[in-house]
Amino acid sequence: MRTQVGIVGAGPAGLLLSHLLHLRGIESVVLEARGRDQIESTIRAGVLEQGTMDLLTETGVGARMRAEGAVHHGFELAFEGQRRRIDLTGLTGKSITVYAQHEVLKDLVAARLAANGALYFNVSGTSLHGVDTDTPSIRFTHDGEAQVLHCDFVIGCDGSQGVSRAAIPAALRNDYERVFPFGWFGILVEAPPSSDELIYARHERGFALVSTRSPNVQRMYFQCDPKDSADQWSDDRIWAELHARVDSSDGRHVVEGRIFQKNIVGMRSFVSATMQHGRLFLAGDAAHIVPPTGAKGLNLAVSDVRVLSRALDAFYKERRTDLLDAYSATALRRIWRAEHFSYWMTRMMHRLDDASPFEQRLQVAELEHVTTSRAAATAMAENYVGSVAV
Amino acid sequence: MRTQVGIVGAGPAGLLLSHLLHLRGIESVVLEARGRDQIESTIRAGVLEQGTMDLLTETGVGARMRAEGAVHHGFELAFEGQRRRIDLTGLTGKSITVYAQHEVLKDLVAARLAANGALYFNVSGTSLHGVDTDTPSIRFTHDGEAQVLHCDFVIGCDGSQGVSRAAIPAALRNDYERVFPFGWFGILVEAPPSSDELIYARHERGFALVSTRSPNVQRMYFQCDPKDSADQWSDDRIWAELHARVDSSDGRHVVEGRIFQKNIVGMRSFVSATMQHGRLFLAGDAAHIVPPTGAKGLNLAVSDVRVLSRALDAFYKERRTDLLDAYSATALRRIWRAEHFSYWMTRMMHRLDDASPFEQRLQVAELEHVTTSRAAATAMAENYVGSVAV
Repeated sequence: MRTQVGIVGAGPAGLLLSHLLHLRGIESVVLEARGRDQIESTIRAGVLEQGTMDLLTETGVGARMRAEGAVHHGFELAFEGQRRRIDLTGLTGKSITVYAQHEVLKDLVAARLAANGALYFNVSGTSLHGVDTDTPSIRFTHDGEAQVLHCDFVIGCDGSQGVSRAAIPAALRNDYERVFPFGWFGILVEAPPSSDELIYARHERGFALVSTRSPNVQRMYFQCDPKDSADQWSDDRIWAELHARVDSSDGRHVVEGRIFQKNIVGMRSFVSATMQHGRLFLAGDAAHIVPPTGAKGLNLAVSDVRVLSRALDAFYKERRTDLLDAYSATALRRIWRAEHFSYWMTRMMHRLDDASPFEQRLQVAELEHVTTSRAAATAMAENYVGSVAV
Repeated sequence: MRTQVGIVGAGPAGLLLSHLLHLRGIESVVLEARGRDQIESTIRAGVLEQGTMDLLTETGVGARMRAEGAVHHGFELAFEGQRRRIDLTGLTGKSITVYAQHEVLKDLVAARLAANGALYFNVSGTSLHGVDTDTPSIRFTHDGEAQVLHCDFVIGCDGSQGVSRAAIPAALRNDYERVFPFGWFGILVEAPPSSDELIYARHERGFALVSTRSPNVQRMYFQCDPKDSADQWSDDRIWAELHARVDSSDGRHVVEGRIFQKNIVGMRSFVSATMQHGRLFLAGDAAHIVPPTGAKGLNLAVSDVRVLSRALDAFYKERRTDLLDAYSATALRRIWRAEHFSYWMTRMMHRLDDASPFEQRLQVAELEHVTTSRAAATAMAENYVGSVAV
């Protein structure tokens, strides 16, 4: 087998890159270890930045997002028994769309298949070869047969546990990591929305987030011990925790419903730099992880492949290598901005058991600041909608 | 002896309060443990916010400050070998004045003495009595004689080591503290300025600050071990450290000169709340300490006594107690803002030995942000000049 660009991983980075390259007349093959059903049903992020929305629309894969996604012009910060709104659109002119990542993946898979794109699901034994030469290849097994995919470039979009990052020699990489001592307990609930907009709550008992999926299904999270087990939590205990953390003193409260999914995820920050080695380029979670607080994970994957698709286009159309050479540095500017924002928002909103009472009290001072200073609110909003200068 | 307002401490808070009360026709007595020479020569802070400048000017004690102080419209942030300017005036319409705290104290002492104000220096054995009654008093010894000062109110302006804070029962106070594991090594240098504006430098070796006192005398600081001894540092070693941390890759460098004073100060954040108990009110360092990074200590003392002088005026003119009752809550809003800003700037600029490489790299990401996002730069500038909403 031969293609121009071999893509490892059919997550948001891999599928979108394949789609963007197709629109520029560049051929690619996508290899994915999981099955199609699995990637189309795994619940992940759900907040799309304005730039992500625009890109999906401009490239013809935004129709269902526009029909079914919910455009939000702000969010609420709940603390000290009150709620204060961050007016995203008023402060930045931009908005966000709440539309689940697996729905984006469904739309991208459908678009690639409609264009006869080469997507291989359920591949195993993937390994990268000759990435520091001009003739790299990917070996893998599909339907019981060993295959070799020869390509000009290998793009590692296979997440933090994939094989791609390890193909950059450790001596050339600087890995930066911060594991947080807390996780998020997530639930899916059959209930009407508790609020028109997302509510990010800071409470002495811990963080909580009231999000939405549809008019009938809501997504809620609350800070927990990452080593806890979701089975240990009865529905009553979950609701008690959410009410304690989110309900405001004016009587607005979280709306209960039937809980039909519970899970716990750990939280960490991670950056691997450089993101390129010879003809291998990393994008998305393969190179960086953010805690979910700032809703940046999916959007960073999108910005990585946007940069990369332009660089590959310049290579194929004009034989220019300058954009490819600059890829890692270019992508990392936005990545470090998002890493800092995600870390900042995480530290401001979560119960920090390692922090002194002084530092815990500073969380309230900072929340007061971002909800009363227009400049501070604007800085937060620009980061959230993804319009911040980098 | 009897007066309306008994003031413990002749630092910026005590002297300015006495001056402000005098202008409103309210009588006060100031008691100070140190000698006049000592308070007029101890080197402390040197950055006056716009509001502090305006207040000194409006109340007739700003003439020398205007003549000898240097108005600055911005400062520079040095990191990664570059320098980037924060345009305070362009971003906020305000500026700051570099004018040493002990010069402010000289001006206030002169004004109080010219108005026949009662200032007692070198007092000892100060103790507070009946602060939870309507007839408090202060006992002290002056010139070998035991005295009792009867007054309507006692104002504790005697710093973090004074007797006043301890007169609020511990059960009624919440003390918040964070001691930083580093200090500032400060020097006074006979040299021309290294720069037109202050330079705050973040370097892997640690923080440094290049400040100024006059056209011929400069003030410089660099992060050090707070347990180190200034005697251990030769001039050569000091200059090597400052050059390494501050000099930029375009050739701009710290200008050397004769070092005629060296000292090391520890750094901590501290807030004691409540700041009032019965007829006792705390102001300035007696109630709160900030690390010097944000240049907020003197300015917070000024904002405390501004609030307090209005509240006392309302009491004497209209027998209103609402402003006095609200004093602590009112003052603490600005205090927590300044505490957060000082902590934030300290954490962004100093070498943090307890931080992971990830968090150290975030310092650079945050410095990039505040020097490229107008909103983030404005939020920083508003805090620095003291015009932030609280």
